[in-house]
Amino acid sequence: MDEFELIRKYFLDLTQPREDVALGIGDDAALLTPPRGAEVVVTTDTLIAGRHFPEDTDAQAVGWKALAVNLSDLAAMGAEPRWFTLALTLRMVDPEWLAGFASGLAAMARETGVALVGGDTTQGPLSITVTAMGTVPAGKALKRSGAKVGDAICVTGTLGDAALALRLGQGEGARGEARSADLEHLRARLNRPTPRVAAGAALREYAHAAIDLSDGLAGDLSHILDASRVGAELKANKLPMSPAFKALSEPEVRLELQVSGGDDYELCVCVPAGDVAGLRKKLKVPLTEVGRIVKGKSLSIVDAHGKKIALEPFGYRHFT
Amino acid sequence: MDEFELIRKYFLDLTQPREDVALGIGDDAALLTPPRGAEVVVTTDTLIAGRHFPEDTDAQAVGWKALAVNLSDLAAMGAEPRWFTLALTLRMVDPEWLAGFASGLAAMARETGVALVGGDTTQGPLSITVTAMGTVPAGKALKRSGAKVGDAICVTGTLGDAALALRLGQGEGARGEARSADLEHLRARLNRPTPRVAAGAALREYAHAAIDLSDGLAGDLSHILDASRVGAELKANKLPMSPAFKALSEPEVRLELQVSGGDDYELCVCVPAGDVAGLRKKLKVPLTEVGRIVKGKSLSIVDAHGKKIALEPFGYRHFT
Repeated sequence: MDEFELIRKYFLDLTQPREDVALGIGDDAALLTPPRGAEVVVTTDTLIAGRHFPEDTDAQAVGWKALAVNLSDLAAMGAEPRWFTLALTLRMVDPEWLAGFASGLAAMARETGVALVGGDTTQGPLSITVTAMGTVPAGKALKRSGAKVGDAICVTGTLGDAALALRLGQGEGARGEARSADLEHLRARLNRPTPRVAAGAALREYAHAAIDLSDGLAGDLSHILDASRVGAELKANKLPMSPAFKALSEPEVRLELQVSGGDDYELCVCVPAGDVAGLRKKLKVPLTEVGRIVKGKSLSIVDAHGKKIALEPFGYRHFT
Repeated sequence: MDEFELIRKYFLDLTQPREDVALGIGDDAALLTPPRGAEVVVTTDTLIAGRHFPEDTDAQAVGWKALAVNLSDLAAMGAEPRWFTLALTLRMVDPEWLAGFASGLAAMARETGVALVGGDTTQGPLSITVTAMGTVPAGKALKRSGAKVGDAICVTGTLGDAALALRLGQGEGARGEARSADLEHLRARLNRPTPRVAAGAALREYAHAAIDLSDGLAGDLSHILDASRVGAELKANKLPMSPAFKALSEPEVRLELQVSGGDDYELCVCVPAGDVAGLRKKLKVPLTEVGRIVKGKSLSIVDAHGKKIALEPFGYRHFT
């Protein structure tokens, strides 16, 4: 047993028992039993040290986030998350780092009930690839392609917190004295995002289209517009802000952070306008209407007076 | 669209149509429809440049092998391969390398009929993680845990070719003048291994236990012995050699290469001794009986006279 086999013990308590796991870690492959008639939903995402997170990021946060970003993709399909595999590449076996990473990963796994069913550990520059799997009732998955003119564009939670945390971490943009509880909130939003799993499942019966917000509202919404062949108008003053975001952001950078800042891991959904109020009551997370699907294929953003705001300065590539 | 989005075009022809793909690449996740009552089989493996293959390895070979090693794991479960995801990390976008890599991957995918259903491309040191998925009829998967005392231990194909290719590549061990066709055969075995998919499925009804040979016969067989709580006796003179292996290997290193050399990607199966002859006729690949499952928990290897050969010098850790 080499060093890299030994580290597998750190992940043993991630293999929580599930009735739909006929055979877990320890053979050539895992055996899973999806419910009869379900579609299997699969997504994969890689996090690279120095690119997706600073090298000195807390190991717990890295473990949590590596799984959370994948479960966010499943949530955006309205899927019930069930299983995941982990491909972990490490420069060396650092027990302290590994224990932290495994505990962060385990916390996210426990919160969502998913089981680690396979993995591979190799030596090399730090990199984590998670493949997450779940199921949806056949034909019921949320796609990017169903948005209709007139749909309300809604987002869960708040926007811009993670982007602001990144900016504050780099010493920019703090408004006066940073209040510690607010800063902690923003950092938790960056490091321990909450995939909107329950919201995704609840939205399945209502939403015409959905996507998770990993790259920023403008960029991610544009994928829905492309797939659905529609346009969108967003209202800048409707974008939901957390109290911490309000407290610690300079007003002149807010829109940029909310529209172009990544790492929110909220859901952006297009729903019939008449369903928004009813839907809001069904969800445990706030749902905010931020705009409407319109004809055409362009994404525009307007201020409180209905005046268009140019998006280009925010790094958003207009496609009209 | 950034550079790394652009490279996705190289992989477009890997998304071959399959009836069991309800939604492929291009949404938050893929939607797959396994056959009713099947178990889903999942495995993941990472290849790192400089560790699993030399940095200057032909890109086609890297693409082929990244998928092949995962399909070999599915074959060892007796599974029908169906889908895979690709997490590719590249230092930079090198169109020539990417075209080669994609064509090698596509060749393996076409040969086995699997479809690329998801992926992630990131910037960093070259690393490839494939997660392969397939199905088996419920309860029919081959595991490591079912070997019984008296079972014949069989292997598909030949052993040691890839290990010899590696050794010859390093300029060691060539026997006289390397014959070019033989060398090509060995290199193809190293760089373009053939996962024994059809054999795995055919063995499903007969084998008590199976594993694929990635790390070497002694090490991999020991996983079966551990899981099945049995021992094994291998016959050194029965280990199957290819003509190229015979032609280019020094006799004194053969056993080491065959017992401890990795990268064969053949199947090692434990079957009732009376079934071997019948099974051999059902398979399109040669099947060779190389030993028997015995009581106890140790792995031993004997020469033509029944005399035990010490395994430790071959890097095999005895566990008795």
